[in-house]
Formats: sequence, structure tokens, C-alpha cells
Amino acid sequence: MGHIIQTTVNGAFGETVEAAVAALEDEGFGVLCDIDVQATLKEKLGKECRQYRILGACNPALAHEGLAEEIELGALLPCNVIVYETDDGGVVVSAVDPQQLVGIAENAVLDSIATEVHERYERVLSTITDELGARSEV
Amino acid sequence: MGHIIQTTVNGAFGETVEAAVAALEDEGFGVLCDIDVQATLKEKLGKECRQYRILGACNPALAHEGLAEEIELGALLPCNVIVYETDDGGVVVSAVDPQQLVGIAENAVLDSIATEVHERYERVLSTITDELGARSEV
Repeated sequence: MGHIIQTTVNGAFGETVEAAVAALEDEGFGVLCDIDVQATLKEKLGKECRQYRILGACNPALAHEGLAEEIELGALLPCNVIVYETDDGGVVVSAVDPQQLVGIAENAVLDSIATEVHERYERVLSTITDELGARSEV
Repeated sequence: MGHIIQTTVNGAFGETVEAAVAALEDEGFGVLCDIDVQATLKEKLGKECRQYRILGACNPALAHEGLAEEIELGALLPCNVIVYETDDGGVVVSAVDPQQLVGIAENAVLDSIATEVHERYERVLSTITDELGARSEV
């Protein structure tokens, strides 16, 4: 998929989720929704899938600024960070590039807020990678 | 904001949220996350804003199909429906056009799933409008 920022680390799944939540908090993002994809698909469809979480993160000040500019912005919030297991034992943390996502709104003021979110998300991924260790390609 | 599908109705805010949740359920979408923007901004920033809810909706079968095609799709899920008060007493229900959102992924198979979601969301908005009554422009 295009327009993704991501890292693949060596940590266990649970500790990677914890590291992601902590790194997001350090950049001012609270996790407003936390969807356990594995549990949801098992419950609703009886299907097995890998461990997979969707963390819906929101920086209240940036969200407030964005909503004041464009009331419809909530349709694109929160900005998700996903964490999932790879087939070979790594754990991926990734997010849609906020600039690409907010680009849908076609509003220059929002673009500058998205640039701010993008820079913070890049730091979040760096922090997680530094903490858990980058996984080399197998 | 471009690429939005929406309706403006005459209902009270709370009953519009209830109608949206029920109409989504009728089309096979569960609400996996429900963010009260007004309460969140009040709590985190002490700011007042209009009533505003973000309903993160997911159709498990379509999500499963999409994730099997593109593991990163979770970064774009769930598909939000937002409900908010207008300045003149109406209530808006809107969503980003799923075809536009999933277009970020640049994957033709996902585009066909997004078309299915789009059609269902159009029916959701029609159901809500029929139930509560369309608000004329003032």
C-alpha cells in the first residue's frame, strides 16, 4: 500500500503495542480508540487471524485547531497507528501518511497541521524502533 | 471539504446518533468506536464546542476481505460516520466517500470493496433522512 510510514521491530506484540502507546503519548497523542482486529474477526466471523491492533490516536490541540478550520475533519479522525505480526515473527507499526489522508480535505490550512502530525509520527516510529530494535529483512 | 457524502436532518442530536447507529447495523456495520468530540475537547483542553460524535463503523465480512487483500488496510479502518449540530439547529450526518479514502491504498480489489461500502453508506444516509426528515436550507 502506498503512502504509509512504518517500521518493523523485533519486540513481542504486546510490548510493541505498549511502546507505541507510550511514544504517542510523548508526542501529545492520546489513544481514543483501540480495536483488537483479531478478537473482533474471531467474535463476529469465527475467523482466525494474526494479532492486529488499530490504535486511533488524537492530539487534542491539533484536532481542535483542525476542526475550527474544517468541521468535517472528524470524518478523518483519529489518525490510526496499526500494530500487527508479520509471518516471520516481526512486528510492524505503521500509519497512513497524515499528509496524504488530510489531502482528501483539499484545504491548505489542514495541510500544515497534517505536516505537524507527520513529523510527530515519524518521531513516534523512531522512538519505537530505537527501543525495540529494527528487524532486518530476512 | 470535498469527497463527502452527507445529509442534514431535523432530528434532535441524540436521536440522530441513535438513528445512524441503527441504520448502520441494518447495513451490517457495527460501531467499534464512538468518540464524543465535545466531551473530549472539554476534558483535555477546557474548550467548549458543539455536540459532535465520531462513529467508527466496520462491516466484519468486508473488513476481513479487505485485510486479506491488503494487510495495511487497518490504517484506514473503521470508516467513520460523523454526527454534529449545525449553527441553525439542524444535525448533519456525514462520511468521507469510502472510494476516496480507500483510493489512498491504490489497489483495484480494495476499490471494489469501497464501492460496496459507498453504496451501503448512501442507503444509511437515505434511511436516516427518511426517518428524521431532510432539513431545508435556511
